[in-house]
Amino acid sequence: MRTIDWVPGPNTGHIRLIDQTRLPGSLVELDVHTVDQLVDAIGRLAVRGAPALGVAGALGVALAVDTLPAQEAMGQVARLRAARPTAVNLALGVDTALAAFRSGGPDAALAAALRMRDQDIAACRAMARRGVDLLARLCPGRIELTVMTICNTGALAAVEHGTALGVVEQLHAEGRLARALACETRPLLQGARLTAWELERMGARYDVLVDSAAASVLAAGGVDAVLVGADRIAANGDTANKIGTFALSLAAAHAGVPFLVVAPETTVDGGTPSGEQIKIEDRGSAEVCEFHGVRTTPEGATALNPAFDVTPARLITAIVTDRRVVRPPEQPGTPALNEEEA
Amino acid sequence: MRTIDWVPGPNTGHIRLIDQTRLPGSLVELDVHTVDQLVDAIGRLAVRGAPALGVAGALGVALAVDTLPAQEAMGQVARLRAARPTAVNLALGVDTALAAFRSGGPDAALAAALRMRDQDIAACRAMARRGVDLLARLCPGRIELTVMTICNTGALAAVEHGTALGVVEQLHAEGRLARALACETRPLLQGARLTAWELERMGARYDVLVDSAAASVLAAGGVDAVLVGADRIAANGDTANKIGTFALSLAAAHAGVPFLVVAPETTVDGGTPSGEQIKIEDRGSAEVCEFHGVRTTPEGATALNPAFDVTPARLITAIVTDRRVVRPPEQPGTPALNEEEA
Repeated sequence: MRTIDWVPGPNTGHIRLIDQTRLPGSLVELDVHTVDQLVDAIGRLAVRGAPALGVAGALGVALAVDTLPAQEAMGQVARLRAARPTAVNLALGVDTALAAFRSGGPDAALAAALRMRDQDIAACRAMARRGVDLLARLCPGRIELTVMTICNTGALAAVEHGTALGVVEQLHAEGRLARALACETRPLLQGARLTAWELERMGARYDVLVDSAAASVLAAGGVDAVLVGADRIAANGDTANKIGTFALSLAAAHAGVPFLVVAPETTVDGGTPSGEQIKIEDRGSAEVCEFHGVRTTPEGATALNPAFDVTPARLITAIVTDRRVVRPPEQPGTPALNEEEA
Repeated sequence: MRTIDWVPGPNTGHIRLIDQTRLPGSLVELDVHTVDQLVDAIGRLAVRGAPALGVAGALGVALAVDTLPAQEAMGQVARLRAARPTAVNLALGVDTALAAFRSGGPDAALAAALRMRDQDIAACRAMARRGVDLLARLCPGRIELTVMTICNTGALAAVEHGTALGVVEQLHAEGRLARALACETRPLLQGARLTAWELERMGARYDVLVDSAAASVLAAGGVDAVLVGADRIAANGDTANKIGTFALSLAAAHAGVPFLVVAPETTVDGGTPSGEQIKIEDRGSAEVCEFHGVRTTPEGATALNPAFDVTPARLITAIVTDRRVVRPPEQPGTPALNEEEA
């Protein structure tokens, strides 16, 4: 299964992606022929997840420069780059393909985007291996592990394998997953809808739980680790991720459970000194006040709806990337502090 | 507005209560003529909230002994007493009316139940006053306060005024409420549905937020206090309340925001030494895996669904009852440790 990919055509190619708003009910693929369609798909989270957004950004540039006059393409690319502000990968994907276009034209842009796709697949494989090895060191003597996660960080958040859920999948493949606990992840339920769907497909034992139950489930004991993804990791290790991640880190720290961030090296943003500088997207009231078109709040109600929060580095046991394991207060913005662990 | 009350009749009376499953869409009253109907209403949360459940339990006994032969009545009363296990008030209400019945017959049972109703109204008034005064001491120099709450602890959780939300209503009545922040309270959204409805009716400024956003909203600053209710307060001050309360207490402690439990003296259970002995109701998968009949998880998914959690006393700034303010580690199970504050 590929979450997002390029479909070559006789004249111009196009992007094909799984429409994640239709899951878990239906597995439907969406053919994207214009940047407008792609921006719309990103905005309504038909495609989401930091690594997948990186590839979407790069493929979007390839699509734009392949199908439009240069000036018009640049305007569309600027809108694409700004479609979601928190994940660093979207802008990075756009910038990478754009640089390739400027030096080598449309073919070079597409080649750069496809390279990014392939690198993501390899990076997720490397993270899964490294994550499982780290868990073995953190949980000595435990053969089967129970792990908790939030949002969706599986194949659906990347290209072919996941980040944090990629580690869970690897544990399962090795017969070492006792149970996965998937926080449902309000307001859009990526945990209940997408992570549960992936766990079901892999045949893993799992339970869903409401986000606010995580703290008492962790405190009750029996969970070996919390694994989360990242949308942007600041130079000091502060990590922006799906709303609820920070609360989960507080609960893990209180319960003495290791809290691991699993994300590709591309999510580390050395240009952002700390979490304070990360822009947090507020997605408006409707996602909170309605569900499947049914209003849950009284008429007139408004909601705060920050889509992400920032977990301070000191609450993170380790950051696992495709290249290294960083243990805050080591600073992931300073490359290769502990390459010996790579 | 009365959430629950007794309607006298020519022969036997009955219970009238607001069907809270219909809010915020419709304000519908339910006439309850049998204990079976009452147990059903309690089970599907048509009536909920610890103080309201206490009155429901007592009125249910009055109904049973008024309409049934003694032996049959006792069987029904036992089922009523066990309809929900976590809140101490339901069993207390049943036991109080039952004791009255044994010494004085059906009329005495009804009189005891009506006394309980009136005492709840008075207790909520006293808590509101005491809570507002405590907030003034905890937040010196702040005229208008922004407060966060979870679940519904308003009039709908009691008879005529609320507990924690009663304090918010009193702040608003005195022109001292800047804004109320209502955690939506998954899975059944008592915050989004019921608390928002009450705040809307009182004309207060408020926002709803997903439960998992509370930690980052608190960390961002600007919230003066967190106010929650209680379903059972153990002798050492550990407090069982709606799932998510414990996570909120961790976030409040991290942010340095006062965390207040507001509950009537009847919620203090001196017979339960600590939170470890409190039985936590798990309400099963369906509430988490479905919403308004729409399945949110894949077929086959199961959920953990603890309806309550326990907040350790050390994370509670103060417990406000109708009679006193207890500051853990003082033990509310030891009566009147600090009556001077009463």
